[in-house]
Amino acid sequence: MAPTKLKIACAGLGRMGKRHALHFLNRTPRAELVAASSPDEAELAWARTHLEPYGVVLYRDYDEMLKQEGLQAVVIASVTTVHAEQAIKGIEANLHVLCEKPLSTSVEISQTVVDAAKKKPHLKVMCGFSRRFDSSYRDAHEKMDAGLIGRPSIFRSQTCDKLDPSGFFVAYAEFSGGIFVDCSIHDIDLALWFFGQDSQVKSVASSGITAVQPELRKHRDRDNAVGIVEFYGGQIAYLFASRMMAAGQDDATEIIGTEGKLQVNAQPMSNLVNIYDAAGIRREIPPHYYGRFEQAFVNEANEFTACCLDDLKLPMKLTGAVQAVKIGCALQEAMNTGAKIWFDETGRRIERAVM
Amino acid sequence: MAPTKLKIACAGLGRMGKRHALHFLNRTPRAELVAASSPDEAELAWARTHLEPYGVVLYRDYDEMLKQEGLQAVVIASVTTVHAEQAIKGIEANLHVLCEKPLSTSVEISQTVVDAAKKKPHLKVMCGFSRRFDSSYRDAHEKMDAGLIGRPSIFRSQTCDKLDPSGFFVAYAEFSGGIFVDCSIHDIDLALWFFGQDSQVKSVASSGITAVQPELRKHRDRDNAVGIVEFYGGQIAYLFASRMMAAGQDDATEIIGTEGKLQVNAQPMSNLVNIYDAAGIRREIPPHYYGRFEQAFVNEANEFTACCLDDLKLPMKLTGAVQAVKIGCALQEAMNTGAKIWFDETGRRIERAVM
Amino acid sequence: MAPTKLKIACAGLGRMGKRHALHFLNRTPRAELVAASSPDEAELAWARTHLEPYGVVLYRDYDEMLKQEGLQAVVIASVTTVHAEQAIKGIEANLHVLCEKPLSTSVEISQTVVDAAKKKPHLKVMCGFSRRFDSSYRDAHEKMDAGLIGRPSIFRSQTCDKLDPSGFFVAYAEFSGGIFVDCSIHDIDLALWFFGQDSQVKSVASSGITAVQPELRKHRDRDNAVGIVEFYGGQIAYLFASRMMAAGQDDATEIIGTEGKLQVNAQPMSNLVNIYDAAGIRREIPPHYYGRFEQAFVNEANEFTACCLDDLKLPMKLTGAVQAVKIGCALQEAMNTGAKIWFDETGRRIERAVM
Amino acid sequence: MAPTKLKIACAGLGRMGKRHALHFLNRTPRAELVAASSPDEAELAWARTHLEPYGVVLYRDYDEMLKQEGLQAVVIASVTTVHAEQAIKGIEANLHVLCEKPLSTSVEISQTVVDAAKKKPHLKVMCGFSRRFDSSYRDAHEKMDAGLIGRPSIFRSQTCDKLDPSGFFVAYAEFSGGIFVDCSIHDIDLALWFFGQDSQVKSVASSGITAVQPELRKHRDRDNAVGIVEFYGGQIAYLFASRMMAAGQDDATEIIGTEGKLQVNAQPMSNLVNIYDAAGIRREIPPHYYGRFEQAFVNEANEFTACCLDDLKLPMKLTGAVQAVKIGCALQEAMNTGAKIWFDETGRRIERAVM
Repeated sequence: MAPTKLKIACAGLGRMGKRHALHFLNRTPRAELVAASSPDEAELAWARTHLEPYGVVLYRDYDEMLKQEGLQAVVIASVTTVHAEQAIKGIEANLHVLCEKPLSTSVEISQTVVDAAKKKPHLKVMCGFSRRFDSSYRDAHEKMDAGLIGRPSIFRSQTCDKLDPSGFFVAYAEFSGGIFVDCSIHDIDLALWFFGQDSQVKSVASSGITAVQPELRKHRDRDNAVGIVEFYGGQIAYLFASRMMAAGQDDATEIIGTEGKLQVNAQPMSNLVNIYDAAGIRREIPPHYYGRFEQAFVNEANEFTACCLDDLKLPMKLTGAVQAVKIGCALQEAMNTGAKIWFDETGRRIERAVM
Repeated sequence: MAPTKLKIACAGLGRMGKRHALHFLNRTPRAELVAASSPDEAELAWARTHLEPYGVVLYRDYDEMLKQEGLQAVVIASVTTVHAEQAIKGIEANLHVLCEKPLSTSVEISQTVVDAAKKKPHLKVMCGFSRRFDSSYRDAHEKMDAGLIGRPSIFRSQTCDKLDPSGFFVAYAEFSGGIFVDCSIHDIDLALWFFGQDSQVKSVASSGITAVQPELRKHRDRDNAVGIVEFYGGQIAYLFASRMMAAGQDDATEIIGTEGKLQVNAQPMSNLVNIYDAAGIRREIPPHYYGRFEQAFVNEANEFTACCLDDLKLPMKLTGAVQAVKIGCALQEAMNTGAKIWFDETGRRIERAVM
Repeated sequence: MAPTKLKIACAGLGRMGKRHALHFLNRTPRAELVAASSPDEAELAWARTHLEPYGVVLYRDYDEMLKQEGLQAVVIASVTTVHAEQAIKGIEANLHVLCEKPLSTSVEISQTVVDAAKKKPHLKVMCGFSRRFDSSYRDAHEKMDAGLIGRPSIFRSQTCDKLDPSGFFVAYAEFSGGIFVDCSIHDIDLALWFFGQDSQVKSVASSGITAVQPELRKHRDRDNAVGIVEFYGGQIAYLFASRMMAAGQDDATEIIGTEGKLQVNAQPMSNLVNIYDAAGIRREIPPHYYGRFEQAFVNEANEFTACCLDDLKLPMKLTGAVQAVKIGCALQEAMNTGAKIWFDETGRRIERAVM
Repeated sequence: MAPTKLKIACAGLGRMGKRHALHFLNRTPRAELVAASSPDEAELAWARTHLEPYGVVLYRDYDEMLKQEGLQAVVIASVTTVHAEQAIKGIEANLHVLCEKPLSTSVEISQTVVDAAKKKPHLKVMCGFSRRFDSSYRDAHEKMDAGLIGRPSIFRSQTCDKLDPSGFFVAYAEFSGGIFVDCSIHDIDLALWFFGQDSQVKSVASSGITAVQPELRKHRDRDNAVGIVEFYGGQIAYLFASRMMAAGQDDATEIIGTEGKLQVNAQPMSNLVNIYDAAGIRREIPPHYYGRFEQAFVNEANEFTACCLDDLKLPMKLTGAVQAVKIGCALQEAMNTGAKIWFDETGRRIERAVM
């Protein structure tokens, strides 16, 4: 008899939802995509062609989908504003939950998901920080753990998107939580991973500009921003996020230790081709994050599935997802107010640390 | 109703056979691995754990497997010596055939597969030159087709394996056809792809040494060899093959045109990590060809499947596989005899071309 | 008759002084090193072997040297604490002055050099920020000027020295002004060069740690520090300085514009050699800044000489050197107090800018 | 008293002659350029501006120049056809000689220089293979000597010039000796350096094409050529030369040993700048060989000077320059006749080696 497969549903069939659905349908051998939901007619039309023929039941309503017989897990790829609500409903329906990042743009709402998950310790509830599943980041982390760089001390990371001149990001900024919560959250999560999941933030400072899209300011956002995050353990993360890259997705990370440095994607590339022509030597780079992280998303689907089926420990704590939102929100606020923001060692906001 | 899947069997479950079997089982959504065969008990034992539970019927005998009800295709990953025979049997059993390279180490035997395939034009018969399915090679080929480098004129390519100090390659050399037939065949196939599938070889010259494994000479083989292949169209391919690399798999290709150059994998890498330590800046490279070409093999499985199901044209001609063996054998002979070998424009061996 | 040469003296013959002296002696065809001074006996002993035989007159006393007949210029490479005083004396003695960076670790004292120079407009007085003479930085600046990256908006730069385990930097920190004044001053000067020499700083924020040398704290210094500098023009520079590199000198700069990005030395290297061995592919990097910037110092000597002889405009304003010290000192203070520091548009310290 | 300087003259003031003259004038502290000669009026006009004001005496006639009082050495940068004759005259005039490569395009004539030099063992006579003075090649050679790559076994090297559409190379081919003698001679010299100066060539085979300049055939030359050189020690060098590069000078070398590989300039670059724009990430490369090897020529001038003044051993044997011409001529002949050319272990041409 063939081993059982994890019966999973996909909530939301937008850009990322389509990908999650197809990953679980075609690229996750131990999972079976059995359902998908979207309130959006265009998304459902897509699903009728690409999912339904393979036995995936489609729903307009998320709550209806949760009732499907035999369902064991749900991947949530809806708009950010409903992540937390749908995650909690999934948990309450006794389903394993893989939720796209962030849980919410609000620390408090993010925490409600953690609280709900705590009540069902047998369930696997994970916020999908895809970079944790990228083979290069993992290799770097393993090398750090093996002591190659001594004690990690300084962390530099950037999430830089290709310029989208359509104005999409201006509209998107209304609900995204802003550039630090939407983009830098990945870098913050990585910092927590490399410095230790329970690292306590001490202060944040940040600055941002609108170099190409001044209208972002009406949503208290920027198109380029840098930030410094100090931790109580004596480490510093410094971050850059941009929505203005000409060449394509330019995400890079450095972990600087007392005895060495690890670098991830400091020389981005689409593939292994170099082009020599009259302008010199050139390589192309991925236009979007999916070009960089496609395989990480597939790994995520497969590992989440294995954790559910084999009752394994998830590769990361759900509480980390709240900590990441907290730091992202503080950076966003520091950028907007100009203030430096301080926390005590228990994580509470304070007026100013004694230096 | 779900779309039909291609019912495929896998012949041979050695190193590459296992991979093909798993690719068709797990990573080829439109195919269904229904059978596998091996005369080897250890290989079958592996299959009982990794294939049988998923509904794959196992056979000790290839001929028996071909009789399985509903079978539509077979992937042949047995030892090279039976490639041609099994391919022909598959064709005669009315199956699509994906055969690992080379068809044979003999030009004449390779040709018998082409002859058999010609009688069944409705079947898809392909010799699996994996690099044709690698995204970097494809991108380079597309860029060449788009005119980025003018007329392709010089082709440099190398297949360089990591040193295997176990002595494996000495034993293997008895049947491999030698370093030009076993390794450089990939580079030769690429040269034919980039210069035009029907390019006619004019001359070959080559030299080889045994730097680390002098016992290879008893099988008329070498551990390092270089060769020059001249074509009638006025192009030159020059090749290097080695089984002596310290760092890992080091396969690189350059296509030099009248207006530019394309390079594939001139800076090999395992992933996107750089390591800074007291010795400088370092990156690791894949230890073996599968580390470099895994995704190409998966692409190959998926595209072969699509060609069979949708009756599409295969991405390459079967006759090219004979041409590649012919050039590889000539290079091997030239290395062993010291002679330069000439061909006329119809492909026949001649004493010497008039310069 | 041979063209005249600039008669120049060198003050200070420590590590950098020796280099300046030899550059002017051997690698500056239009200059003639005629004198050198040092209060240090060991330095003078060195000079007796390496300078005196070529006609260079040696002095124990700087003031005495200034009286040498025919002297036209002086390069000051003494300890930082006397830079300003010696520069002013040189100016008052009617000499062109090339002074090592920084003019002083104090903004006020730095300004006195500017004031002295203003009174002698016929003299060339330059603070030697060597990176401005580096061919890569210059190429990047020209490409920016030519519009390749649109409007420069974000500037990232780092000055990262190899770890010196001798404890030298702890002693040195007493007078160096600290990591932002000693190291980041180069990055700050570059930011002013790329953003416009008269850019007005709006705010600075910074953080530092002592990862390897906690004793630095007694001099209010750190071994790793990051800072953010905001300018009124709507640009941001963010900086990293470290004295903890394992691999060697790791200075890199990025200028991110609205239409592209320029990178200088993002992949440091000692030379054009790659080493493939069992650990992968590796290259070495320069152990010290002179390994990276030797040619820039030689260019500096030659161009300063040409400016003096031909009465050309210096490639940079002396006031910029004061502005760089001002920003460096503010970053150092911000690191030590934890405060974010604000300036108004005229450059005066203020309590807090209105956001 | 200032140490004495080597009084040197420069013969020939063409492209390379001008550079040698200026190197000895301005960038070789221990040498004094005292004379220069050229039969060409335009070249002399240049010298009247750039050399004469600095005390360099100019001559129309080489023989006249040799008579100049006090002359100690001569650098020969005339047209190749007079290299040998001028070198021999210099030797006979008791001068140290630095002669541009090649000594001659004829093996026999090259040998006459060696014969002349043997009679004056107190003189330093060197053929200037500039790459031997390049810091990257030297570093690679030192690393090989230190055992980093085990026994060097395969040598790959290329000299690839930027396409010059002016037709210059067609005219030039009449006297250059052809692409293997003019370009590959550098790679051959390097092979001899890395494999051992006294390595004995066993066979050469080669092929060439005219991809862009078919008129080269009238001078029995090609614009692209590849060759294989086998040595009796059991090593192989394989070479590529081209005059068709779109991007610029593309000279690269690999030395492959039993335990590793060294690579020189596999990723050519003009400087340390990367340009990110809509086309990807790009760097420029030097347009000409002087952009790549300028510092090597300067080193050559300085070391030749030191060898003369201090009676040091030259860094390479003059006989190697004959051996390099011999191999280059054999490759050129093999390309033109199509034959593979064999030598016995004493260096004599033979019909065919017994395999």
